[in-house]
Amino acid sequence: MINVAVLGYGTVGSGVVEVIESNNAEVSLKSGEEMHVKYILDLRDFPGDPYESLVTHNFDDIVNDPEVSIVCEVMGGIGAAYKFTKACLEKGKSVCTSNKELVAKYGAELLELARENHCSYMFEASVGGGIPIIRPLNKALTPEHIENISAILNGTTNYILSKMEKEGADYGETLKQAQALGYAERNPEADVEGHDSCRKIAILSSLMAGKNVDSEKIYTEGITQITATDFAFAKAANMTIKLIATSKSLADGSILAMVAPTMISKENALAAVNDVFNGVLITGNMLGDVMFYGKGAGKLPTASAVVSDVIDCARHVGRSSIVCIWEKEEVVLADIAETEKAFFVRASKDAAEEIKAAFPGGQVVACEAEDFGYITTVMKEKEFDEKAAALGDKILNRIRVA
Amino acid sequence: MINVAVLGYGTVGSGVVEVIESNNAEVSLKSGEEMHVKYILDLRDFPGDPYESLVTHNFDDIVNDPEVSIVCEVMGGIGAAYKFTKACLEKGKSVCTSNKELVAKYGAELLELARENHCSYMFEASVGGGIPIIRPLNKALTPEHIENISAILNGTTNYILSKMEKEGADYGETLKQAQALGYAERNPEADVEGHDSCRKIAILSSLMAGKNVDSEKIYTEGITQITATDFAFAKAANMTIKLIATSKSLADGSILAMVAPTMISKENALAAVNDVFNGVLITGNMLGDVMFYGKGAGKLPTASAVVSDVIDCARHVGRSSIVCIWEKEEVVLADIAETEKAFFVRASKDAAEEIKAAFPGGQVVACEAEDFGYITTVMKEKEFDEKAAALGDKILNRIRVA
Repeated sequence: MINVAVLGYGTVGSGVVEVIESNNAEVSLKSGEEMHVKYILDLRDFPGDPYESLVTHNFDDIVNDPEVSIVCEVMGGIGAAYKFTKACLEKGKSVCTSNKELVAKYGAELLELARENHCSYMFEASVGGGIPIIRPLNKALTPEHIENISAILNGTTNYILSKMEKEGADYGETLKQAQALGYAERNPEADVEGHDSCRKIAILSSLMAGKNVDSEKIYTEGITQITATDFAFAKAANMTIKLIATSKSLADGSILAMVAPTMISKENALAAVNDVFNGVLITGNMLGDVMFYGKGAGKLPTASAVVSDVIDCARHVGRSSIVCIWEKEEVVLADIAETEKAFFVRASKDAAEEIKAAFPGGQVVACEAEDFGYITTVMKEKEFDEKAAALGDKILNRIRVA
Repeated sequence: MINVAVLGYGTVGSGVVEVIESNNAEVSLKSGEEMHVKYILDLRDFPGDPYESLVTHNFDDIVNDPEVSIVCEVMGGIGAAYKFTKACLEKGKSVCTSNKELVAKYGAELLELARENHCSYMFEASVGGGIPIIRPLNKALTPEHIENISAILNGTTNYILSKMEKEGADYGETLKQAQALGYAERNPEADVEGHDSCRKIAILSSLMAGKNVDSEKIYTEGITQITATDFAFAKAANMTIKLIATSKSLADGSILAMVAPTMISKENALAAVNDVFNGVLITGNMLGDVMFYGKGAGKLPTASAVVSDVIDCARHVGRSSIVCIWEKEEVVLADIAETEKAFFVRASKDAAEEIKAAFPGGQVVACEAEDFGYITTVMKEKEFDEKAAALGDKILNRIRVA
């Protein structure tokens, strides 16, 4: 009998309990032993809840119970969650989490602590919700030198952008609709400003490099400046606009990571990833491209990923189940100002000649929209920024082109 | 030091040697020990080959060498490959294979033999080439009750169908082009008649059910009857035609498996899987849909999948690394005659009224093509077949609609 404790009885926490108990036949079969939830830690009471009797307000009940071998940390944040995770690992209890903020910040340290205590720190649910992505990176793509990761990692922004594309709607009204439908939070900043995607690409980049990537140093740009007119131009160019998180392994050992709205060709596999779905495109030096696609969020998909980690731990009680190389050493991040790409530029029609003169050799995007749209040749970000600064207000928006 | 033997120095075999030796830093790091190829078994000599000195013609050199702990069977076929695989497993040597024919036929037996001898029988490369799909099913989607698998599992037929769609070309000429480019074999039967897809869906179905699915009992239909005109109608209906392998878990414990060209909506995630790519869409009861996408064949992608298994075995020498539930007990396959779906029917224009009368309530597909195109209501296959038989030659083609 395997006893699990769940820290936090919110959306994901209640999903974890539901997956373990509703799919108990599958879960116990794959674990090799019967598995049940023994404790649910939460500050609140849940009168009438079918698992009311499992609720405790006291973390000590869990950490001091030798029968609990696996703990799910699904409370979020980097305060109590960090303290509780450390306490569990120090007692040799494996911890499975969906908490991307904590993983991005303390992943390397917590993995080391788990190894020292012959248990595991697992975080499949921290990236891509229910899509298996951490485990494929750690256990399946093992012979590969991973050259590049390009991904749509945030369902809220992808829903908004898909909707803007399909309906020709503007950002503000689409955000309001998304909030009304529960696809965006009342305070949407973490999603729409790209911070959520940034934490996730930091985690994937750390696994790609085997060393620590500091999420706070990754260049991050959100989707709040994207307009219906930008989408009209993207469509005219047979492209679309997605919030793309990328990480590229450079020859000198550094990594080029960034999160930014990007115009991508309709032929790109990520262009077909719409609505709340996520997609992660990984390029290995032997394998070429492989893509993982599915719902990147939601109660049950995320809970399912947490429970897949719990089952993995159940098969490895008393030893580390994860072969995860993520050292504390910091990765050098490449300066994006020095990297080269093309830019889509939108300006008022009377600035057309000035734009063409500033960025010679580019392509005018023919479109019925009021503005003038132009795609520059490939140039350094630094060079683009200098020229754009000289043009001042004349540039209404600029979007990187993949 | 981990010593590997490779049985068969053909396309995949030479790829396996290349991945282990060219990516040796990654491979050895992830294995936890330095890994090298010690033997290559082949009937031929390879004068001038960089690994010439490793070639042996004698299987006994390998099976009797206690230093060899992992063997890659990449020779194909079910004769010597079967004999050699058994001999290796009986000696406690793990076997990693890309041989879908052997896995489909003897998977359950060889897995049992591996368990008895505390080693592993691994077959990530047998389905989907380089795409991680066996490992996600066995190790990541563990809490899920898998409800359905729909997949494009054969790169050759997908290349042909994609090309027919894009260029409006007919089957015969497209096959010839594919053969000239090396995307189809001179004898293409195993691919174009669906046998290759059938073996692969049999393997996935066996893992889904935990019991054995006999590939010879799966209804299988190839792509040789699909015409340019069918694609014109598909396009008019905002659909496309793909060779889809499906497996559905029914409430009574039986499985509905089949391989057939199918008209699918352009909105279906599999519709975006083009050219030689494969895509596997899995539906779990908690997770919803998740899709795995990548190159389903080719020397290095397939070899990379074999080596990912080799690394997994290297981490588990002396014990089974795979938790794979695939018992010998036979799964009951549902009778497809009793299943319900809609059908696309193509007929000459003068048969239009007869078709509409035979299948009332369906939809005419408006299209500029010479023929008459019609999509029936959802009905049992049996019922459709009876009505179609009564219409005789008037029906020029019929394609299932998803």
